[in-house]
Amino acid sequence: MSERIRDFLRRRDDDGPCVVVDLDIVSDNFQAFARSLPDTSVYYAVKANPAPEILSLLESLGSSFDCASVGEIELVLATGASADRISYGNTIKKERDIARAFEHGVRLFAVDCIEEVEKIARVAPGSKIFCRVLCDGVGAEWPLSRKFGCDPEMATDVLEYAHRLGLTAYGVSFHVGSQQANLEAWDFALAMAAGVFREMALRGIELKMVNMGGGFPTRYLKDVPGVPRYGEAIFQALCRHFGNQLPSTIIEPGRGMVGNAGMIEAEVVLISRKSAQDDMRWVYLDIGKFNGLAETMDEAIRYPIRTPRDGDRTTPCVLAGPTCDSVDVLYEKTPYQLPVSLSIGDKVLIEACGAYTTTYSSVGFNGFAPLASHVI
Amino acid sequence: MSERIRDFLRRRDDDGPCVVVDLDIVSDNFQAFARSLPDTSVYYAVKANPAPEILSLLESLGSSFDCASVGEIELVLATGASADRISYGNTIKKERDIARAFEHGVRLFAVDCIEEVEKIARVAPGSKIFCRVLCDGVGAEWPLSRKFGCDPEMATDVLEYAHRLGLTAYGVSFHVGSQQANLEAWDFALAMAAGVFREMALRGIELKMVNMGGGFPTRYLKDVPGVPRYGEAIFQALCRHFGNQLPSTIIEPGRGMVGNAGMIEAEVVLISRKSAQDDMRWVYLDIGKFNGLAETMDEAIRYPIRTPRDGDRTTPCVLAGPTCDSVDVLYEKTPYQLPVSLSIGDKVLIEACGAYTTTYSSVGFNGFAPLASHVI
Repeated sequence: MSERIRDFLRRRDDDGPCVVVDLDIVSDNFQAFARSLPDTSVYYAVKANPAPEILSLLESLGSSFDCASVGEIELVLATGASADRISYGNTIKKERDIARAFEHGVRLFAVDCIEEVEKIARVAPGSKIFCRVLCDGVGAEWPLSRKFGCDPEMATDVLEYAHRLGLTAYGVSFHVGSQQANLEAWDFALAMAAGVFREMALRGIELKMVNMGGGFPTRYLKDVPGVPRYGEAIFQALCRHFGNQLPSTIIEPGRGMVGNAGMIEAEVVLISRKSAQDDMRWVYLDIGKFNGLAETMDEAIRYPIRTPRDGDRTTPCVLAGPTCDSVDVLYEKTPYQLPVSLSIGDKVLIEACGAYTTTYSSVGFNGFAPLASHVI
Repeated sequence: MSERIRDFLRRRDDDGPCVVVDLDIVSDNFQAFARSLPDTSVYYAVKANPAPEILSLLESLGSSFDCASVGEIELVLATGASADRISYGNTIKKERDIARAFEHGVRLFAVDCIEEVEKIARVAPGSKIFCRVLCDGVGAEWPLSRKFGCDPEMATDVLEYAHRLGLTAYGVSFHVGSQQANLEAWDFALAMAAGVFREMALRGIELKMVNMGGGFPTRYLKDVPGVPRYGEAIFQALCRHFGNQLPSTIIEPGRGMVGNAGMIEAEVVLISRKSAQDDMRWVYLDIGKFNGLAETMDEAIRYPIRTPRDGDRTTPCVLAGPTCDSVDVLYEKTPYQLPVSLSIGDKVLIEACGAYTTTYSSVGFNGFAPLASHVI
């Protein structure tokens, strides 16, 4: 709970739901990553929250940046960061976007197939590439699909091919899955990465870098391990699999960097029941899946919610958003306990909303504005 | 397939994915509804596609409008339509938004509980209200949740309460579920509506209107009944349940009005496999769940896709979007047949994209722009 955010909300005079991000917490998070993994470079995953104030703060703290598009690259360059602090981490890129990134000075690119290597060789000659390897994501709250990465055998062929086309076969990346609470996940992935390093060495190519991706969790309602425990587990796994030849390493925290730094203020629009006999209250907020809380999809993330009636007796409620869309329901399979005294017009605070809220917002579904954002 | 859209796409010189909507098809769709249900007022569901050109066309054709928010109401008024052609059809409204709508001249409001009736009585005195009744949505491709509506017994109490507070208890609404291909669904719902009319008559209150909602399907890959067959089935059901005292009726087509009028042009960004032995191709487009194709969620809607290689041999592909988000996969459980000759850089046409594409777009997830829209 950030007192600075509460103060800001007390003073604000605009109407409607908004997210407020506290830069002090982002700064603390950056320092925690830097301290816990002192030999690892932090590449902030811009997609989690690309607010210019957040990017500028992280630039000033010495962070590097993981970008998904030329649009994100340009946002980062606008902070004054040099292009050598940028990784174009999307494995799916148009050739003309690779060319634009190269013109901007970007020299580090993700790939997971030879087709992408060919594009980079054509328009970003001499660049460093890292190959993303499929990882099974066991233990993650959101295991990833197979969308990104290739199997480790194919990765060695992709890297060798890049080398032959004059690119620098630089390393390997993986992603253990979002909101990953299982510290062992990195051990499994690092073992696989070390295998690719060994195979490449046999082919006469020395890889340099392991990009360990993101997946660092934010605390929602369930407890999660703290950053220091991740740092320890990751360092031990690195030593176990790479011995005394530790590669240079990168992490790409997004949610872990900004998730707990933001809070949404929303308003109770309606509280009703479906029939006279119905015990279940439906509570409708002015925020839902289409203007900020997309990550409640499948009720995957359960945000902590504070109300002005906390302490009163609670009963289970279905919680829903304000649009005329029946999928715009936040918690129904597992109803949310809310005070019986909660009233129409009450303001509620939704915690840990700094990541993946503003940018998931629709442009104006049902005529509602995208989530307003304040960074303080 | 609209030749006008194909011509436009051949001539356009902007880059990136876009949707193009053909107003001639919207006009045809409006006429089909008007002809098939000659005694029913058409209230276009603005949320399906609020492009100003579409609203202006429908205004000139005599359509009325179903609005989900004050934002949508203001878009409609900007066409020159008078406020008596607007229904504020969202059952979830802030009291101050009801007041703003009332100031704009809106006098027709949806409710599904007494709490909402109280708000309307306070700030929109004398208005007409209709109560939404829960409907089970059997047969719909997207059955609705219980988010909107109350049970019929409660509806009578809500309407009576509105009457007592000085509002006009005007009618009943229901929604049979989106993309509803079962003509019987309206029969079931109209029987329920007629029951509410009878009960209200016993209480001395004469209801006037049945709002039959939307749910009219667009043809994607599967065939659906045409509008005339819906018109016939609905008219028969009205006669069966209301006899010679037919109420005035409203329909709220959204998808049925604009779905087949729009086409998206997208580009193949990457085609790859996950391992050397893998038979399955992954095809990545520059459009996905976050910049236009949100309705592929759960693979619910299967869009027809045309490629410049149609006619060549096809094999199944996983189809995915361009973002660094693993949920941004369009068709994976049921892969999509695409030509083996399909190549990186090819343009593809995605049909029946006129509804629920532009407004579901995120404001800029991963730094990609929202879906561009052209109305011709």
